[in-house]
Amino acid sequence: MTKEDNLSLVIHKKGDLRLEQTPIPTELGPDEVLCKTHSCGICGTDIHYWMHGYMSSFVVTDPLILGHEVSALVDKVGSNVKHLKPGDKVAIEPSLPCRMCHNCKTGMYNHCPLSNKQVKGSPNFHGMLTRKFTHPADFCFKLPDNVTYEEGAMVEPLAVAVHAVRRVNLTLGQTVLVCGAGTMGMMCLAAAKAHGASKVIMTDINQFRLNVAKEMGADETILINLKTFSVEDVVAQVKQSIGNNGEDGGQGGVDITFECTGNEGSTKVAIYSTNNGGKVALVGLGPLEVKAPLVNASLREVDIIGVCRFRNCYPMAIYLLETGKVNLKPLVTHKYRLEQSLDAFKKMIEPDNNAIKVLIQCNQDF
Amino acid sequence: MTKEDNLSLVIHKKGDLRLEQTPIPTELGPDEVLCKTHSCGICGTDIHYWMHGYMSSFVVTDPLILGHEVSALVDKVGSNVKHLKPGDKVAIEPSLPCRMCHNCKTGMYNHCPLSNKQVKGSPNFHGMLTRKFTHPADFCFKLPDNVTYEEGAMVEPLAVAVHAVRRVNLTLGQTVLVCGAGTMGMMCLAAAKAHGASKVIMTDINQFRLNVAKEMGADETILINLKTFSVEDVVAQVKQSIGNNGEDGGQGGVDITFECTGNEGSTKVAIYSTNNGGKVALVGLGPLEVKAPLVNASLREVDIIGVCRFRNCYPMAIYLLETGKVNLKPLVTHKYRLEQSLDAFKKMIEPDNNAIKVLIQCNQDF
Amino acid sequence: MTKEDNLSLVIHKKGDLRLEQTPIPTELGPDEVLCKTHSCGICGTDIHYWMHGYMSSFVVTDPLILGHEVSALVDKVGSNVKHLKPGDKVAIEPSLPCRMCHNCKTGMYNHCPLSNKQVKGSPNFHGMLTRKFTHPADFCFKLPDNVTYEEGAMVEPLAVAVHAVRRVNLTLGQTVLVCGAGTMGMMCLAAAKAHGASKVIMTDINQFRLNVAKEMGADETILINLKTFSVEDVVAQVKQSIGNNGEDGGQGGVDITFECTGNEGSTKVAIYSTNNGGKVALVGLGPLEVKAPLVNASLREVDIIGVCRFRNCYPMAIYLLETGKVNLKPLVTHKYRLEQSLDAFKKMIEPDNNAIKVLIQCNQDF
Amino acid sequence: MTKEDNLSLVIHKKGDLRLEQTPIPTELGPDEVLCKTHSCGICGTDIHYWMHGYMSSFVVTDPLILGHEVSALVDKVGSNVKHLKPGDKVAIEPSLPCRMCHNCKTGMYNHCPLSNKQVKGSPNFHGMLTRKFTHPADFCFKLPDNVTYEEGAMVEPLAVAVHAVRRVNLTLGQTVLVCGAGTMGMMCLAAAKAHGASKVIMTDINQFRLNVAKEMGADETILINLKTFSVEDVVAQVKQSIGNNGEDGGQGGVDITFECTGNEGSTKVAIYSTNNGGKVALVGLGPLEVKAPLVNASLREVDIIGVCRFRNCYPMAIYLLETGKVNLKPLVTHKYRLEQSLDAFKKMIEPDNNAIKVLIQCNQDF
Repeated sequence: MTKEDNLSLVIHKKGDLRLEQTPIPTELGPDEVLCKTHSCGICGTDIHYWMHGYMSSFVVTDPLILGHEVSALVDKVGSNVKHLKPGDKVAIEPSLPCRMCHNCKTGMYNHCPLSNKQVKGSPNFHGMLTRKFTHPADFCFKLPDNVTYEEGAMVEPLAVAVHAVRRVNLTLGQTVLVCGAGTMGMMCLAAAKAHGASKVIMTDINQFRLNVAKEMGADETILINLKTFSVEDVVAQVKQSIGNNGEDGGQGGVDITFECTGNEGSTKVAIYSTNNGGKVALVGLGPLEVKAPLVNASLREVDIIGVCRFRNCYPMAIYLLETGKVNLKPLVTHKYRLEQSLDAFKKMIEPDNNAIKVLIQCNQDF
Repeated sequence: MTKEDNLSLVIHKKGDLRLEQTPIPTELGPDEVLCKTHSCGICGTDIHYWMHGYMSSFVVTDPLILGHEVSALVDKVGSNVKHLKPGDKVAIEPSLPCRMCHNCKTGMYNHCPLSNKQVKGSPNFHGMLTRKFTHPADFCFKLPDNVTYEEGAMVEPLAVAVHAVRRVNLTLGQTVLVCGAGTMGMMCLAAAKAHGASKVIMTDINQFRLNVAKEMGADETILINLKTFSVEDVVAQVKQSIGNNGEDGGQGGVDITFECTGNEGSTKVAIYSTNNGGKVALVGLGPLEVKAPLVNASLREVDIIGVCRFRNCYPMAIYLLETGKVNLKPLVTHKYRLEQSLDAFKKMIEPDNNAIKVLIQCNQDF
Repeated sequence: MTKEDNLSLVIHKKGDLRLEQTPIPTELGPDEVLCKTHSCGICGTDIHYWMHGYMSSFVVTDPLILGHEVSALVDKVGSNVKHLKPGDKVAIEPSLPCRMCHNCKTGMYNHCPLSNKQVKGSPNFHGMLTRKFTHPADFCFKLPDNVTYEEGAMVEPLAVAVHAVRRVNLTLGQTVLVCGAGTMGMMCLAAAKAHGASKVIMTDINQFRLNVAKEMGADETILINLKTFSVEDVVAQVKQSIGNNGEDGGQGGVDITFECTGNEGSTKVAIYSTNNGGKVALVGLGPLEVKAPLVNASLREVDIIGVCRFRNCYPMAIYLLETGKVNLKPLVTHKYRLEQSLDAFKKMIEPDNNAIKVLIQCNQDF
Repeated sequence: MTKEDNLSLVIHKKGDLRLEQTPIPTELGPDEVLCKTHSCGICGTDIHYWMHGYMSSFVVTDPLILGHEVSALVDKVGSNVKHLKPGDKVAIEPSLPCRMCHNCKTGMYNHCPLSNKQVKGSPNFHGMLTRKFTHPADFCFKLPDNVTYEEGAMVEPLAVAVHAVRRVNLTLGQTVLVCGAGTMGMMCLAAAKAHGASKVIMTDINQFRLNVAKEMGADETILINLKTFSVEDVVAQVKQSIGNNGEDGGQGGVDITFECTGNEGSTKVAIYSTNNGGKVALVGLGPLEVKAPLVNASLREVDIIGVCRFRNCYPMAIYLLETGKVNLKPLVTHKYRLEQSLDAFKKMIEPDNNAIKVLIQCNQDF
C-alpha cells in the first residue's frame, strides 16, 4: 500500500459516515484493472445503510467504503487484459460472482451465492466512493465516446431496468404502467420506451418527479394524493388511459407493470391494473410483507416477477445510451465533489429536495 | 324439447339445491355432439355455490344445473363431426371460448372473455349434472379403452394440474413442494411426478390425505398442526427434506411449489421454501388478499405464477391416464347416483369425511 | 347471385389469365362481412400460377380468381359483427383455418390443414382480385385513418416479415443480414428495423432495388455480381460490415439472417454469415433442394428456421404502419386499375422493370 | 515433473498413434484437481484424427494425447476445492471455457472461442488417455455410488444427447425419430425416452445395432438397405409407425428427429419425416455440404437445429444414470487396457465389428 491520497466515504455504523483515507491496492491480478472513480450515484441502499445500519439482510459490522453506481477511468491493466487500456472510460458492474457454480455457468450469475456477498459497497465488500480501486476487467465495460462519465454512473440502475424488461419479456407495442417515479421508475420508463412500449403511464405522489417523467417520455402521469388514495380510483385512471371502458371482462389493463415503490397500495394497483395474462415486475423494495390480491392475480394469470439486480445487462444499457434510445441526463439533479459527500447524503434526505439522481465526483483531473 | 327423463341437479339460490327435470336439447349443430353424462365429480366450486350462492365473481341469479367435471357417452354426432361416433367414451372440457378474439387465436383461449362466461355449471351456463346435454365436438375428448369413465370425470381437475405444470415449465429432475393434499394438490402431485419431478414433498393438516398422497407417490409428507404452526418450521422441514443444511445463502429450497390451499400461512411457506430463481404456482383459491413476503420473492426471483383453468391440456391429461403415468383411482373415495346427489353434496361438507373425490353417476345404463 | 358488375381476374390454366364477370355472393353469415376490394398487390405466387399453372403443391385445375394481398372497404356486416361497420377500411388476412383442430386451438393456425386449403387466391379458393367478396369478420383488420388503402394492401407481406421476426425472436440491438431485396426482403428489412435491429445489411443482384433498400433504412448494401459471385467474398463483406476482422474464431457474423431468395449460393452466404448461436430464417422459396453447409450450421448452432405465412401478425403489422415505425410507401412502384390487370401482370415479368410492389385498384369509387 | 509412470496414447500425425510416457503435471492450482483416469471411451473423432490427421477444422500438428470421454478417480484436490475429495469418482467435462466472455457469462459457454481451442484430446490440448491429469474442479462431476466408472466414461456422449434434447425442447409425450443407431443415436434414444418421448423410431443400416437399440428401449426400428434405399419409402415407414395414413396434409410425422449420421439421404428422411412445426436436431457430422429440401422444411416450419457439444448437461446426464432413467450398460461392447489401446483403435475400424462403445481402462488399481 502506498501513501497516495485515497480519500473514501466510509460508513462505520448507523448514522456514522466519515470521509477518511483508505489504502490504495497495489497488487493487480492479470485479469484485473486499476481504476480511478469518476462519478458515483447515491442509491437508496446507501441512504438505508446510513440511516439504519443495514438493508435487507446486509448489516454494517465493520467500516465499509460505500458506492456501487460508478463510472471510472482505467489507470492500469493486468497482463491478460486485452479489451481495455489505460485512459479508457468504463462503467463498473459491482457484484462479483464465483464463475464456477451452477448458477454462474448457466448464466444466472446474479443468483451465485458469492455474488450476493461480493457486492461492492455492501457489507462487507468495499465500494467505490474513493479515488482508486481494482476490479475484474470483464466487469468493467468500455463506454463509447458519446457517453459521458455522468451517464456511465447511471449504467448500474439502468441495467436493473434492462433486467426487469427482460424478466417480463417486454416486447414491441406493449402498454406499460410504472408505479413510482423515483430513480428506478425513471429507469424502467426509459428502458420500456427503448424496448418499444407503445404507451407508458406513470404514478407518483410528487408532481415534480412526474414532470421529469413527462420530459423523459412518459405518455401519461397520474398524481397520487395519499390522503384520498383509493386503489379502485387509480386502477380506473390507468384503464381509462389505455382507452378501456371496462366492458370487456377485465381485459382492459396494461400488458406490463413495473412496481417501483414497494408500497402495499401501489402493489395492489399494479396487480389490478394489469391485463389478463400480463406481468407485474417487482422492482421496488418496501416492507417485508404486503397484503396482495393473489387470488385475482392467479385467476387472471397476472404473473408476479422478481428482479434481483441484473445479469449480462451492461452491454444493452450502454447500447441504449450510445444510440440515444435512452437519455438519462434529465435525471441528474445534483452533483457534489467527493469532499462534499456528506452534503450529498444530507441532500438526499431533505424533504421536498426534488432530487432524483445525486452524483458524487471522486476525481477532479479528468 | 321432449318429455324424456332429464333429471338434473339445479341450484336455485344459496342453500337451495334441487333435483328436478330439465328440458333435453333437441337441436344438434353440425359441429356438436349429444352426450349422456356418465360420471361427474363434485368440485369445491360447486360446494361454494351451494353454501354461499356465489364463487369469486360468479353469482347464482337464476336456476342453474351444476356439474363441470364430466365423462360421458356420445349419443349422437352432428353432420360435420368426424373424430367421434355414437358409443364413444369422452371427457368434456367445460369452458367454451369464442374462437375469434385475439386470445383465442393466439392459443390463450382460457383468457377469452366469453370462455369466462360460458363455463358449464357456473352462472349462467347450465352444467352437466343431468342425463343429456349437447357440446361442441372439439371440446369432447375421446377416452382410450383403458381409461374408465370414473377416471374420465377427473380429466378436468387433472387438466388444471397439467396447465399449472406447464405454466411453471416443470422439467425433468426438479424438486417440488405441493401445499395442500386436497383434490388439486393430488392432481399437482400426479402431474409433477409424471413430468419427471425428482422429489415431491406435500403438506396438509389431515393425515388421511397425506396417506393417500404417499400412495399416490409423494416422496415426503409434512403434517401441519394448526395450533403450533410456524412458517419457519415448515420451511425448515421442506429444506431438510431436500437435503439442504441451510448453509448456501438461500439456495436450498425446492425448484417449484404448487400452492393449492389459498391459505396465507401456506402462501408464505410456498415462497420461502422455493429456491432462488424458482417458481410458485398459485393453484388454490383463498381469501381475496393475503399477506405475502413479496420483497423476499422479488430479491430471490421466485416468480409467482397464476393458473386459470387450462388451455389445450385435455390431450396430455388423457395421455397421462392412458399410459399409466398418472393413476387417479386412489382419489375416488365416494360414489353416488344422480338421484342421491344431495347426499353426495352433504358428504362433502361433513367434518372428517375423509373425502377426496366424490363422484355422481348420472346414467345407469352403460 | 345478382347481375351487378363483379369484374374479376381469373386464371383458367397456365398462361391463361382472363378478366371476366363472376357472381357476387349474396349470402352473408352472421360472423362475416361483405367487402369491396380497394387495392391488391401482385405476389410472386400469382405470377408463378400464371407462368406455370402451379406453385409448390398448389395446382390450378379450375378457373380461379387470383389475389390475396388486399385492402378493402366494408360494405355490409353480419348480425354478430361488432368490431366493424360499413365504411370501415380493412386489411384482409387471406387464409382461413378451421378453428377447431389442435393447431388452431394452440394458436398455430398457420399449420391447420384447412388453412392450407383455404388460402384465398390459391387453388381452389377464390381470391379477391374482384369487386366484392365476403370474408370472416375476425380476419378483416380495421386500418387506422392514417394508414392508406395502398399500405393496407401490403399488410399481408409485412405480416410474413413480422412472423419471420418472431420466429427468430429478433430483439433490440441485434445485427441482421437480409439476402435479397425483393418485396419480402424489403418487408424483412422494415420489420427488423422496427423491432430494434442495430444494423441491417442487404444483398441483391440489382442496384435499383438496393437503392430503394437504402431509402427504406438499410445500413449497408452489397451488390452481388452473378458472374464473379463467391460465397466466401460475400461472407467476408458481411463480416467486414459488422466490424469483424475475422480473428475471433467465427464469432463475427450477424445475429440473424433472413434468406429471401431461395437461391443456393445465397443460402450458403446466409449460414456462413451468421454468428455462432444465431439464426437463419428461410423466407424465400427456391428450388426444392439446395446444397447447404449443414455441418457448419450445426457445429456453430446456427439454427435454420422455417416461415409459413403468419399467425396473429396483422395487428402488429398494422401497428407498425400506424406508428410510422415502418414506411412501405417507397415500395409501390406501379399502379393499375382492375381493368388493366393483364398489363400489370405483364409488367411484373418484364426484364429490368424496376418493379417492387405492383398494385391493382379494384374499385374506383372510394 | 516426476518420473512416475504416465503411459499415454499419443497421436503424432495421420496414422501414427503411439503409446509413450508423458510428464505428470506436478503443479495443482487452487481450483484444480489431480485425477487418475479410470475409463475412456473411443469416439469417432479419435478415429478420424488417427485416419486423417484432422477432424473438421482441428488439425493434428504436434504430438497430442487423445481421449475426452473419461471417468476418473480424484487423487488430490486444490486448496479451494470443497465439493470433491481424494477418492471421489468423477466424470470429466473436457472443454474448458474462458469464464469471462459474453458467451460464458450468458451460460452459452460451448460458444466461448477458448472452449473450442481447449477441448481435451483435440489439437492442441492434451487428452486423458493417460494415467494422470489435472483438471478444473468445477468441470469434474462427482458420480453417485451406483454409477460405475464405465458408465461415467459415457457421461460425455450422453451429455451431447441431453443438450440435443434441450435444444429441441423435447417434452413429455412427443414422438421421435432417431436416424442412425451408433453411439450418438443410442444416446439420443436413451435421453429422449428419459425425457418422456412416447415413441422412438430408429433407423440404421446394421441389424445388430438395431437389436441393441431395441434392448435400449426403441419402440420401432427400420433397417435401411443401402442398395434399395429410397427417401420416400423410409419416410412412409416412419409415418406408418406413427399411425398416420397420410391423409392429413402432412401432419403425420414425428414431433422431433435426431439426425445422427450426417448422411445426405438420412438428412432428407429427417426433414420429410418430421411433422409441421417440428424440429430436426443435427447431431451427426457428415460431408461439409448436403443437398437438403429446405423449401419443404421452411413451408412446414420444420426447424433445423444445431448441436455443439453441450453446456451444463453433466448434472442431468449423471442424474439419468443415477435414477436408472437411462441404462447405458448394453452399449459397452468391448473393453481394453491402456496398454492395448492400439488394438482398441483397430477394433473400431474392423468391418462388421459389432462395436458400439469401446472403452479403454487406464489404471488397474481401483
